[in-house]
Amino acid sequence: MTETLKNRGTVRVYDDRPVDDALLRELFEAAFQASNTGNMQLYSVVVTRSREGREALAPAHFNQPQVLSAAVVLTFCADVSRYSQWCRQRQACPGFDNVQSLVYACIDTIIAAQTLCVAAEAKGLGICYLGTTTYNVGQIIDCLQLPPLVVPLTTITLGWPKEAPSVSERLPLEAIVHEEYYHPYSAADIDRLHEAKENLPANRHYVDINHKDNLAQVFCDLRYTKKDNEHFSTVFIDALRRQGFLK
Amino acid sequence: MTETLKNRGTVRVYDDRPVDDALLRELFEAAFQASNTGNMQLYSVVVTRSREGREALAPAHFNQPQVLSAAVVLTFCADVSRYSQWCRQRQACPGFDNVQSLVYACIDTIIAAQTLCVAAEAKGLGICYLGTTTYNVGQIIDCLQLPPLVVPLTTITLGWPKEAPSVSERLPLEAIVHEEYYHPYSAADIDRLHEAKENLPANRHYVDINHKDNLAQVFCDLRYTKKDNEHFSTVFIDALRRQGFLK
Repeated sequence: MTETLKNRGTVRVYDDRPVDDALLRELFEAAFQASNTGNMQLYSVVVTRSREGREALAPAHFNQPQVLSAAVVLTFCADVSRYSQWCRQRQACPGFDNVQSLVYACIDTIIAAQTLCVAAEAKGLGICYLGTTTYNVGQIIDCLQLPPLVVPLTTITLGWPKEAPSVSERLPLEAIVHEEYYHPYSAADIDRLHEAKENLPANRHYVDINHKDNLAQVFCDLRYTKKDNEHFSTVFIDALRRQGFLK
Repeated sequence: MTETLKNRGTVRVYDDRPVDDALLRELFEAAFQASNTGNMQLYSVVVTRSREGREALAPAHFNQPQVLSAAVVLTFCADVSRYSQWCRQRQACPGFDNVQSLVYACIDTIIAAQTLCVAAEAKGLGICYLGTTTYNVGQIIDCLQLPPLVVPLTTITLGWPKEAPSVSERLPLEAIVHEEYYHPYSAADIDRLHEAKENLPANRHYVDINHKDNLAQVFCDLRYTKKDNEHFSTVFIDALRRQGFLK
């Protein structure tokens, strides 16, 4: 199992074979058995298979082609609405319309999403996470008719791979793991820990075609700019307010 | 694999055998190969093995006994600090001190955490998530010496199980999965979807010993009260401000 996890990669191109209902149910059963806060299961998943549904979602994902080409598109949502409704029907007084409840619902939602991905990859399926979900969050709320106290967090495209996944490089473990307490990084640490990544031919090429001096500049100037991050922060905060998590 | 995932359960009681370094490294390698936003790997993990370290952390986790009894305690943190430092050293201008960056860092952090859990369970280890991490977040920041732009999100206790995990019940899939768009739940839907859970002997007993009328009241009046959720929301928001994610 560990070897499979260590050699996995994202799949963005799928063939036309459908993912049948029984298989999808099996993946959900695996996903929902994962750990969650107080067994409240504060999440929902919207399954988009129809052509119309995927065409409606695509613009919110900046028209990434896998939204149309994948057999299934899964939108994982933090959901304290269903639980609150159950509480009200039982003369209990739910208090989940706040940031802390959102946080534990989000953690549970991503635990379920990633468990589904691991289960899917073990079956030979390919997956891709769409980070655009929290960017164009208002459009997705409208498109999927999400009620108050439900917010979409991530989207997974799922299908049979048309090509082998590309296994991408990762930082050395020492870049991520701290023994006993957080050890600040010296300038030399940062250089050493990023050297292999910066020298990969694919990354050098990526810098060249973007006419930048280095990989960090590609990310800060083009891919994840301060301006975009701040804009999409405002959008996300507005959505949390609209959905009732923030006063 | 799917069967393993469907039959797993949380383990809170561990035996004394250590988890050796090679095994822990293998789990980290699996965890960090999971999907992440733009391959930025916006997370860090603090490994607590020492008796002193665990004793220092325990109060922040309301002295849950597994903090002391597990071989390893792992605190998973959303971390845009290391990435920002790398950018500054490359004359790039990082803009990750905001909510949207926090959100994608959080998603990546939990994806890595859950992948580690799946890998650990496949090796026969037992895990338990500690939701207390985002409650007493300030204490954990101090204890682990987390710098600005790093926030702890979840903690996993890891060890060899002393007893078989208890597999807990879950809602039927229809409670969680929506086809094409979110279908509101009727009152009858809510009753039907929760009936099996409410009638489990363990849950009926749990209601009785807490002198409540039903399970929802145990959760709203005792376990996840509105008052606590609101208090810990303020604590978490303060921590985000202190760590530089909120202005």
